[in-house]
Amino acid sequence: MQQKIGIVGSGLIGSSWALVFARAGCEVTVYDRDPDTFAMSGQYIRENLEALAAYEMLADPEAVFRRIAFTPRIEEALDEAGYVQESVFEQLEVKREVFERIDPLLKPGMIVGSSTSGIPASRFTQSLSNRQACLIAHPVNPPHLIPLVEIVPAPWTDTAAVAATRQLMETAGQVPILVNGELEGFILNRLQGALLNEAWWLYQEGYATADDIDKTVRDGLGLRWSFMGPFQTIDLNSPKGIAEYAERLSPLYLSVARSRSDPQPWSREAIHRAEQEVRPKRVQDDIPKSRLWRDKLLLALKKWKMDAGLQ
Amino acid sequence: MQQKIGIVGSGLIGSSWALVFARAGCEVTVYDRDPDTFAMSGQYIRENLEALAAYEMLADPEAVFRRIAFTPRIEEALDEAGYVQESVFEQLEVKREVFERIDPLLKPGMIVGSSTSGIPASRFTQSLSNRQACLIAHPVNPPHLIPLVEIVPAPWTDTAAVAATRQLMETAGQVPILVNGELEGFILNRLQGALLNEAWWLYQEGYATADDIDKTVRDGLGLRWSFMGPFQTIDLNSPKGIAEYAERLSPLYLSVARSRSDPQPWSREAIHRAEQEVRPKRVQDDIPKSRLWRDKLLLALKKWKMDAGLQ
Repeated sequence: MQQKIGIVGSGLIGSSWALVFARAGCEVTVYDRDPDTFAMSGQYIRENLEALAAYEMLADPEAVFRRIAFTPRIEEALDEAGYVQESVFEQLEVKREVFERIDPLLKPGMIVGSSTSGIPASRFTQSLSNRQACLIAHPVNPPHLIPLVEIVPAPWTDTAAVAATRQLMETAGQVPILVNGELEGFILNRLQGALLNEAWWLYQEGYATADDIDKTVRDGLGLRWSFMGPFQTIDLNSPKGIAEYAERLSPLYLSVARSRSDPQPWSREAIHRAEQEVRPKRVQDDIPKSRLWRDKLLLALKKWKMDAGLQ
Repeated sequence: MQQKIGIVGSGLIGSSWALVFARAGCEVTVYDRDPDTFAMSGQYIRENLEALAAYEMLADPEAVFRRIAFTPRIEEALDEAGYVQESVFEQLEVKREVFERIDPLLKPGMIVGSSTSGIPASRFTQSLSNRQACLIAHPVNPPHLIPLVEIVPAPWTDTAAVAATRQLMETAGQVPILVNGELEGFILNRLQGALLNEAWWLYQEGYATADDIDKTVRDGLGLRWSFMGPFQTIDLNSPKGIAEYAERLSPLYLSVARSRSDPQPWSREAIHRAEQEVRPKRVQDDIPKSRLWRDKLLLALKKWKMDAGLQ
């Protein structure tokens, strides 16, 4: 891809986005108001490029790295960019402020995607002159290893901008999906939340330990879900496919849902107890080391999926 | 393992169970009232043993196969067996009938686990003389590739039988979890159901296509879940771990749950529409071929997890 990309915010998500677009051949300029972050961002990108190369998923990490520049001037990051990915702190006021700075710098045809995981675009783009160019492009962390991107337009987002973003993400090797409406949690966090809620309630009611619930997913449900979606999965779980499955099992699942029709917050007692149980089971001593462990496995899984002819 | 194992029912699940225990070194006798099924069961086991060997997860498939015998006499399958795995048709009356036949054949110390995915053991073991020896050991299909086993005791199941079954499953290379109470759907199908319900409702409300919902899981949520449980996952998604994550995000998830507090059945219209959408997206022409595709990927994933030092 020849397109120039601007990244606004050089944290972990912004850095991983820079890698994604540079890997796809784009010239990328990363802006952050604090230039002290550039060294850490550069190091993160470099280490992850080298890891991709070590797994034979990238031929020339140096060449990719050379396509990424850093600047403390937002005008410079946006100059001639066709697409801008905003990845600043997840807080409505911060998003609003940064979009107000971006707005006057937009030229016709430019698109801005926000990495927000939950704030609808209409809440921070309503009063902008170029609000039709703004949408949400919500990644999973880190986007260079987990390809899904949720595209969530505001009511006033140009349909052409939506289509172009979807196309851009596909060309960059991501897997975009379109969310038709600004619903709370979008699609990904609603699906995750549904499972998490049930997991917490089962835990706090004493039906299973946290470790056993974790095993149920990582040694059971999660295996097929790493290469098949939930509809694809149930389509193969009945001789005649998904409709037969749905007819047969929807009464059970409705009954499960009705048993949760008065949802209560996760209890503080359960949260405290889960923390005591989960912490000593961490695969590594602390969270940063455990994250490196996780990302290394995501890398190996990505390699495995590529070799198997999957995404 | 030197223990002798009896399998009751020679369908796909029973056949896969036979493979699991024979792979672990047990002598296995498979009973079915219909001896015409034995050829197909033997072929299934043989093909799957060869596939495991092809992926270097088994040294001597022939030796494993020789440890499996078939019989149309249930007495023979149970003779000297330490553990019996029941895998007959999923219907209360059928389970009741087969457990009534098993009951008088049980000797002290023998344990019987049922493969049922949803019928509580108390509903088909209550009136048995040896009901303390009966429990549920619910596998995921196929158990020789997906290790999770839900152990669900009835109120009268011996705690020693529960502990021994958990130990047996671990020794056989499975991942057992304990469900404390006979709740509807056990743990696995409640977690799956929570996600499936949300997926269907999002689909029928038009927020996303079935394909995009499938992508959200297989290219997003499902990657981490193939080697980390939901609690492990969120523990790494906040700088200070699971408790901080729960404090920060439980209001969002509660709000998502409350938006579903009047659950309705999956609509027939949505089921019909999903079928039209999912069928042409099948990776292979038909369901049997797609299942072979799925099982081959599960095999490769198992190999990948073993090589990565995971279960």
